[in-house]
Amino acid sequence: MNILNVLSRNKRISGEKIAEILKITRAAVHKQVNRLRKQGYNISGHKNSGYSLVENPNLLIPNEIKLNLHNPAHLKEIVYKDKINSTQLLAKELAARGKPEWTLVVCEEQTQGYGRINRKWFSPKGGIWFSLILRPDILPEKVPQITLAISISICRVFKKYKIDPFIKWPNDIVVDNRKVVGILTEMSAEIGRVNWVIAGVGINANNEIPGEVKDTALSLKKISGYEVNRARLLADIVSDFHNVYKELCSKGFSLFSAEYNKYSNLIGKDVKVDSGDRVIIGKVKEIDSDGYLWIKHSKGLEKIIAADVTLSGGAKDG
Amino acid sequence: MNILNVLSRNKRISGEKIAEILKITRAAVHKQVNRLRKQGYNISGHKNSGYSLVENPNLLIPNEIKLNLHNPAHLKEIVYKDKINSTQLLAKELAARGKPEWTLVVCEEQTQGYGRINRKWFSPKGGIWFSLILRPDILPEKVPQITLAISISICRVFKKYKIDPFIKWPNDIVVDNRKVVGILTEMSAEIGRVNWVIAGVGINANNEIPGEVKDTALSLKKISGYEVNRARLLADIVSDFHNVYKELCSKGFSLFSAEYNKYSNLIGKDVKVDSGDRVIIGKVKEIDSDGYLWIKHSKGLEKIIAADVTLSGGAKDG
Repeated sequence: MNILNVLSRNKRISGEKIAEILKITRAAVHKQVNRLRKQGYNISGHKNSGYSLVENPNLLIPNEIKLNLHNPAHLKEIVYKDKINSTQLLAKELAARGKPEWTLVVCEEQTQGYGRINRKWFSPKGGIWFSLILRPDILPEKVPQITLAISISICRVFKKYKIDPFIKWPNDIVVDNRKVVGILTEMSAEIGRVNWVIAGVGINANNEIPGEVKDTALSLKKISGYEVNRARLLADIVSDFHNVYKELCSKGFSLFSAEYNKYSNLIGKDVKVDSGDRVIIGKVKEIDSDGYLWIKHSKGLEKIIAADVTLSGGAKDG
Repeated sequence: MNILNVLSRNKRISGEKIAEILKITRAAVHKQVNRLRKQGYNISGHKNSGYSLVENPNLLIPNEIKLNLHNPAHLKEIVYKDKINSTQLLAKELAARGKPEWTLVVCEEQTQGYGRINRKWFSPKGGIWFSLILRPDILPEKVPQITLAISISICRVFKKYKIDPFIKWPNDIVVDNRKVVGILTEMSAEIGRVNWVIAGVGINANNEIPGEVKDTALSLKKISGYEVNRARLLADIVSDFHNVYKELCSKGFSLFSAEYNKYSNLIGKDVKVDSGDRVIIGKVKEIDSDGYLWIKHSKGLEKIIAADVTLSGGAKDG
């Protein structure tokens, strides 16, 4: 229990009462309220009149995330930064230094956000940029399934927020064929054993979409017309993924492949598949129980491990 | 060309002549000779009598390695440490910071050497402990083949040194069923793309074998009866592997699987295979063109991706 919990649960509460609940002095209450105000919380009143939380600043500060987790034990630690080069870079560094799994690195703004193949990922204030340290006891070749699994959790949560998402295999979530979420899963591994995985997620939430990508990207705010509670959305995703991840590691991806295919925007579609070395034109059959994409083309069926997929017939590449 | 090259190529050479060849002053020659002496080189004479390289200290210093490479361009950079926790840890750090491939990290002694599954690897003075940064353009699932490929290079070089090695799949080289070399390949990757690979190699060369592992490990010195030229052996391995790696990345492991099977000590043998979760008893069929081990047991053939393999019938686990 902390002062933010107490304020959230009471319309107005006296400093004396807070001090009593938290077993601290009234001077300490006063100090902590002032610290919260500096962080951006709008708290009216003072120790005599009683305090009231008028508005929270919709930041991703650890307190807010923890308050919204379905189980506070889901996260071991939350590392919060206002502005950082990339949550992914910091998470990799922390993982290498031994931080446990379910450590979350989150920030308000990234200056060097990146996606697959080192592509730039715009990460202005108002978005949700986070990286989760995981240490799954699975084979390295199964790690790409973590990208697919977290996509499912994100789609489930979006549905609850009345957003209708599609997964664009392997690592994007789109609405109206425009990118709302990008996922980047990186791992450190040896033969047959994973040291750590960083599941990185970027969500265009309440942020402006920079001019360079305005034709291919979209924000949740633009879709729904209102500002999303970012800490709550993030906590909902982490909470759902906590279960999905446990099942993925123990039972495998086949458990989720039907749900994944349901969310996929590619099934049965004519596509262009660019795997870097070569381009394949064909029709998508499915994403299989291992998480691979199967394409039917003139020479038969082909399994694709990773590629850029473009819908044929005018649809933009997300 | 440097002073060590000049000394190596001449039985005795005057300071004046060295100065002339290297286009430096005689005072500079004198200074450099003294620096080499401090590193452990036994150089007799002085600037008037002429210098003579009596003995080199058999260290892994960059100069010595470069002198022995079949092509000095094989290595981009050599990072040399006298004593370090682990060349693997430093190489991972350097790779993460962007060091190019074919950067070699090498040391005389490791205080925290480790092998697969974080097992302790004893690394006293006299052994050859190195980690090579690679950035292969292959799929992450092919990375274990790099372990197999470098085993082949090591066996080839050992043969030239009149050592008769066997490869104990996946990552050891044994003589008389005792471990002479351990290999640890670690990678950083995302879906379909490798960021970097560190190929780590530990060779019991001239070092004493610590009591804890004296029943399961063996040194080259013990096998051959003489001290091996460590820098030359290392340079020979790097030079051979330079070609093997290029072919592996462009043409795949199938090119090497016959040679690998020839060096394997497991083919046709009864083995116990412990993959962590379960133990399989069976007979080894082959290491296939993807580098996986195939075991024939009562229920049929089974593909093994990584495991501890023990020869049945009294042979010790390497």
